[in-house]
Amino acid sequence: MSQAGLLYSGGADSSLAALLLNQFHEVTLLTGTFGITEDWRHAAAAAEALGFPHQSFDLDRSVALDAIDQMRTDGYPNTGIQLVHEHALERAAGQFSGVTVIADGTRRDDRVPTIDTPTAQSIEDRHDIDYVTPLAGYGHRAINRLTDRLLTTNVGPSETIPKGDYEAELRVCLREHGESVDAIFPAHEQSVVTGRH
Amino acid sequence: MSQAGLLYSGGADSSLAALLLNQFHEVTLLTGTFGITEDWRHAAAAAEALGFPHQSFDLDRSVALDAIDQMRTDGYPNTGIQLVHEHALERAAGQFSGVTVIADGTRRDDRVPTIDTPTAQSIEDRHDIDYVTPLAGYGHRAINRLTDRLLTTNVGPSETIPKGDYEAELRVCLREHGESVDAIFPAHEQSVVTGRH
Repeated sequence: MSQAGLLYSGGADSSLAALLLNQFHEVTLLTGTFGITEDWRHAAAAAEALGFPHQSFDLDRSVALDAIDQMRTDGYPNTGIQLVHEHALERAAGQFSGVTVIADGTRRDDRVPTIDTPTAQSIEDRHDIDYVTPLAGYGHRAINRLTDRLLTTNVGPSETIPKGDYEAELRVCLREHGESVDAIFPAHEQSVVTGRH
Repeated sequence: MSQAGLLYSGGADSSLAALLLNQFHEVTLLTGTFGITEDWRHAAAAAEALGFPHQSFDLDRSVALDAIDQMRTDGYPNTGIQLVHEHALERAAGQFSGVTVIADGTRRDDRVPTIDTPTAQSIEDRHDIDYVTPLAGYGHRAINRLTDRLLTTNVGPSETIPKGDYEAELRVCLREHGESVDAIFPAHEQSVVTGRH
């Protein structure tokens, strides 16, 4: 079986992507960190609850600064998050030896982050790797149904659910730069995976 | 497990989609036919070789006529094939009771047929069904690798490989209308599945 590395936050989407990818690949879950907080450990805990191996990897702190600059200019997080996601994919695609597939949990109905086909093909060509998005063919209702059936989760406001995505570190980074975090990242509901049914 | 109906030609793509979808759904393979030829039986044979239940269903002959009109106008088959595929999806989504997921083998790198997100959401809303494309997150190289590993196939020129897709019936239909079939459908390589590794 080929080795796949899946960008992993501990949330329901990347967890479901892991279960799908695991059918025909040997999956390691990968969480990028700027080294600003230890929130990647929440993703590591979720990975353990699911029974997958997990590794963290370093993201470039300057990309966090570019992302929050972008967010402050825009007044909303989307373009900044896209920037960080593309950086994380490039980093992960280039650094794990033996990994022939790099994957993430982006979904058909997501607006951000999203990797269009030319960008996907460019990642594949430059890193000689396959880029796979197991949820790209699933709409949000189909994903919710599979999540309910397969995973146990804690759901709540984003500030109280400890997760390993970029948001926690970017929030801290914004706060350190004197920004009103809630104006840029409005509170929203998110989920972290606690195990399988 | 929810019941999924997957549009099926007997080719490598829809067969791989069946294996992926089968992980979390009960899959029935579905082949549309205009009743012009019995080529759907090649898809039924491939389905049996893979170990999946199979059903044929009727397509509207007038759509075949619209499709070949379109092809004669265009001088190439793509838009006509897209027309037939959308018709087949609508038909299949509306007619199999108990089926809560309708699926097909379209891939990330396909130009045709392809269902964009608004069209996918429209099918889902109108038929109260989930539309799933298991290969939408896989590029052609990743698909070739999985196909080589999981499926046995016969590969050859499209005219000598008996398959259950729309092409066989549309070729006959074009010929009956006095068209030079090869001018519109240039000979190309295709594959039919003969079993699993």
